[in-house]
This record gives sequence, structure tokens and C-alpha cells, in this order.
Amino acid sequence: MAEENVIYVGNKPVTNYVLAVMTQFSEGADEVKLVARGRAISRAVDVAEFIRNNVMPEVEVKDIEIGTEEIETEEGDTISVSTIAITLAKPSE
Amino acid sequence: MAEENVIYVGNKPVTNYVLAVMTQFSEGADEVKLVARGRAISRAVDVAEFIRNNVMPEVEVKDIEIGTEEIETEEGDTISVSTIAITLAKPSE
Repeated sequence: MAEENVIYVGNKPVTNYVLAVMTQFSEGADEVKLVARGRAISRAVDVAEFIRNNVMPEVEVKDIEIGTEEIETEEGDTISVSTIAITLAKPSE
Repeated sequence: MAEENVIYVGNKPVTNYVLAVMTQFSEGADEVKLVARGRAISRAVDVAEFIRNNVMPEVEVKDIEIGTEEIETEEGDTISVSTIAITLAKPSE
């Protein structure tokens, strides 16, 4: 998937990411992937559900992957953090 | 899936739920489903990943479903909350 169709969900309001997804789809993307780590995982699910319930009911959840990333803290320690990748897809016409 | 193989992830420490999953599998369950809502979604992913990375590497993520539930607040309002259901499975011998 093209890098521009990946949206990294962080701490901004859900609506920021909803708009970003809508923009990707309106610019012709067939799939958009929401990627998040740690506590933002819940927000990524919120974004996907908000899109499907309120904005683009035709969009499907094509795939959900969970995993673990090792990240380095400012103190130089390495910690594991959970990740999620939710692939949203427009039904093929 | 039998109700007892469903573990509802809330605000307790991750290790509580890890132990609950281990108990289910050790008592013979082939599948265990982690269910969470709202902010606990991130913790449910943490539990699944902790199990796979540290405790039972043979366990697979068989399925992940996201959804929305309508819940009533104490003030009587109805709000939507995101949900996740992660099905962990032992590989069939």
C-alpha cells in the first residue's frame, strides 16, 4: 500500500483522522490503513467505527493486524508497545 | 464459544487478564476471546501481545472484530462506544 494511504493515529481528536480518511478515499484511494500504537489503539478503532457508522457506511474493515514494536525511551531503555493496523476498503465496484 | 472462554478486559492490570487467559487454556479451552470497550481496547491488545510474546508463543490470533455498542449513561443519555473482540487460538495438534 502506498505510504500516503497510511494514516498514523496519535493523540489528536478523532475527527482529524476521520477527515484524513475521507480525503484519501475522495482522492481515489481504494484502501486506507489506520496505524496506531499504545493508548492510541482505542482511538484508531474509534476512527474506523465512526467512518463506518456515520460517514461512509459502504466502507468495510478488510483486515486488522496487531503486533508489538520495540521503542527506545528518552532514557535509552527499550520497551515493547502494542500496535494495530486497520485496513479500510471501499467495496470494489 | 462458551461464555466462560470469553474474558472481558477492563481496567485491571494486564497481568490479571494474562493469568485468566492462561487458566482457560490450561483447563482445556482451544480458543479464548478477549472482549473490550472504549479505552480498554488498547489493554486487550496488550494482553494478546503479552501472551504471544512472553507466555504462549504458539497461540495465534485467529480473529479480530471491531464494532460499536450503544450504552446508556447514568444521566440516561445513549452514547456509542467502540468494541473489540480478539480470538486467541491454540494451534490444532
